[in-house]
Amino acid sequence: MVGGSVPVFDEIILSTSLMNQVISFDPVAGILVCQAGCILEQLNQYVEERDFIMPLDLGAKGSCHIGGNVATNAGGLRLLRYGSLRGTVLGLEVVLADGLVLDCLTSLRKDNTGYDLKQLFIGSEGTLGIITAISILCPQKPKAVNLAFLGCPGFSEVLKTFTTCKGMLGEILSAYEFMDNRCMQLVENHLRLSNPVTENPFYVLIETSGSNAGHDEEKLNNFLERVMGSGLVTDGTVATDNMKMKMLWALRERITEALSCDGYVYKYDISLPVEKLYDIVLDMRSRLGQSAKSVVGYGHVGDGNLHLNVTAKSYSSSLLKAIEPYVYEWTARHHGSVSAEHGLGFKKKDFIGYSKPREAILLMQQFKGMLDPKGILNPYKTLPSSSC
Amino acid sequence: MVGGSVPVFDEIILSTSLMNQVISFDPVAGILVCQAGCILEQLNQYVEERDFIMPLDLGAKGSCHIGGNVATNAGGLRLLRYGSLRGTVLGLEVVLADGLVLDCLTSLRKDNTGYDLKQLFIGSEGTLGIITAISILCPQKPKAVNLAFLGCPGFSEVLKTFTTCKGMLGEILSAYEFMDNRCMQLVENHLRLSNPVTENPFYVLIETSGSNAGHDEEKLNNFLERVMGSGLVTDGTVATDNMKMKMLWALRERITEALSCDGYVYKYDISLPVEKLYDIVLDMRSRLGQSAKSVVGYGHVGDGNLHLNVTAKSYSSSLLKAIEPYVYEWTARHHGSVSAEHGLGFKKKDFIGYSKPREAILLMQQFKGMLDPKGILNPYKTLPSSSC
Repeated sequence: MVGGSVPVFDEIILSTSLMNQVISFDPVAGILVCQAGCILEQLNQYVEERDFIMPLDLGAKGSCHIGGNVATNAGGLRLLRYGSLRGTVLGLEVVLADGLVLDCLTSLRKDNTGYDLKQLFIGSEGTLGIITAISILCPQKPKAVNLAFLGCPGFSEVLKTFTTCKGMLGEILSAYEFMDNRCMQLVENHLRLSNPVTENPFYVLIETSGSNAGHDEEKLNNFLERVMGSGLVTDGTVATDNMKMKMLWALRERITEALSCDGYVYKYDISLPVEKLYDIVLDMRSRLGQSAKSVVGYGHVGDGNLHLNVTAKSYSSSLLKAIEPYVYEWTARHHGSVSAEHGLGFKKKDFIGYSKPREAILLMQQFKGMLDPKGILNPYKTLPSSSC
Repeated sequence: MVGGSVPVFDEIILSTSLMNQVISFDPVAGILVCQAGCILEQLNQYVEERDFIMPLDLGAKGSCHIGGNVATNAGGLRLLRYGSLRGTVLGLEVVLADGLVLDCLTSLRKDNTGYDLKQLFIGSEGTLGIITAISILCPQKPKAVNLAFLGCPGFSEVLKTFTTCKGMLGEILSAYEFMDNRCMQLVENHLRLSNPVTENPFYVLIETSGSNAGHDEEKLNNFLERVMGSGLVTDGTVATDNMKMKMLWALRERITEALSCDGYVYKYDISLPVEKLYDIVLDMRSRLGQSAKSVVGYGHVGDGNLHLNVTAKSYSSSLLKAIEPYVYEWTARHHGSVSAEHGLGFKKKDFIGYSKPREAILLMQQFKGMLDPKGILNPYKTLPSSSC
């Protein structure tokens, strides 16, 4: 996506895959301490056996390391409910550029002794230090999980359904994802998945997680009655069994895969005020016209996070020029972020100015200079090469 | 508590009380942007009228400024449910030591463009910059709130009740506070409040906040049946009406006031692994014997945060010597924090070494040197005077 972990020139690749041990788990507080090379899905399995879950979940869970998740401040599917890693990560052990080990691996929910150094390393893509161990707060494993997959006649209905849903599902809402009909066509055509509801311009996937199956079902049914009665939703299906839930999640999680079957993909991961979230897709679709094969939008409505993707038969610099910097300018004009969850890495570092003011970038460069004066930590990444 | 905002030598006092305007509120996402001098309670009222609440609540709400809350990374009563300010604060505007305005006042739930500079200012007690405006994520206002005040025969029952409560109340649990019987005697004697349950060694206050009154009540009743049936709780009372809820909260919130009527107060605000939370109170009580009037413990069990307080007729340096550094050494030995939520300020800055390693303190001093080379921002506070 952004080439944050891709060596480009003369980098040395450092693997933490052998640092894969759980160090401790506190079953009262739900605090896990583990090494950086642990795989997210395996950690989730470990804590699930103890009646907890990891506070983050993402498509790459089967291969991604928790150290990488923290270094890139990964968002993912549970952020709406459990918040970002900036709140759930309690402590870090980090190796600094000069080899010094910074031990901030506390397991406390509250600690206000001095500056919170660990935050600098969360999301810094390995450019300020190497994360070697993590302490993280895990939520209780929900006793009941329900999924609903709904069809909406327009994006304003997607938003109104979201507001209704926040009011009626409240504390049990754990995901609110959306995809447009073009995404659905791609997963149908390229992956042979089938649309479980009638064709609609938009689809939303709602997940609830709670401690009482009966209560959750009642809340969900009341909500469905309301949104279907008022025409916000035209068709829907619900699931509580694992098989059907996996099938419904696949429609959303496998969009990336379907896009890669469609041709060369131009990928954008932006944050916008929710009301503007889909405007850029419509705008881009009419701007690019026949020069693009597909222009699609999907993502995390609850977090104001849109995945905008454009496909074409093959890479073309003229198409790229039609998209960039237009997409960044559009985002900046609406006070959005040009990288909501994937970081800046190698490919987007020079676009940071669209989302951060000059003073902030200068300060970041000062931090980099202080912590890594020789520039040996993930060089050529995250910060712009020239001073701006 | 720690003298973080108290001028000691030659400081200039800076007031933000005229910077008291709400800048914007997004009713779909629940994002409030306001100036630093807004009073927490007034902000809460403002967002409540729009069906949201502030993500933090504390005893000082009627006078504290949101800018100060963020600068000190205030914890308070809602942290258990809505997490820390490190997750809920989305953006900050900060004036740096050289007068430069750092505008990181975004209103996005996700933004991974470069380092998260705002985190450095959260909890830095004004020593790195002056916070002038804040963007913060507000949770939906709960439709139903229930309170239960329970008596427990021992601290292990307090913990078991907590675990049971997390399982059975799950997502609607919004506070789990405890106080010992000595606290109860103090609020009874000094403030003429009355104990609503039979006398017990410990009391817990449980709050639920949810979107469906019937469901919440049913969950709470099932929970109460379980803990009273199993002897974890010997007596209890519940409240849903505002008057009684205020009365029950007063028992917990007015402990500080009752302590100040009891004599000179030595106050400690520490984090510990929950299983150890009360051991230090027992230990201190037997250590100090007759030289102390009261040794009490209360606080936020859910966050592992204990308020340990010792009172005596008047200040005595020999009593202080019996308490410190013993209390800090005890905390460090159990990997706790010597300041869970009140920061280090002037009085505790030299104790930072009990909770942070030397390398971390050196790094903090480097940050301070970089951002405030002349040492003009809240001088003499937070970091130790000498290098350690």
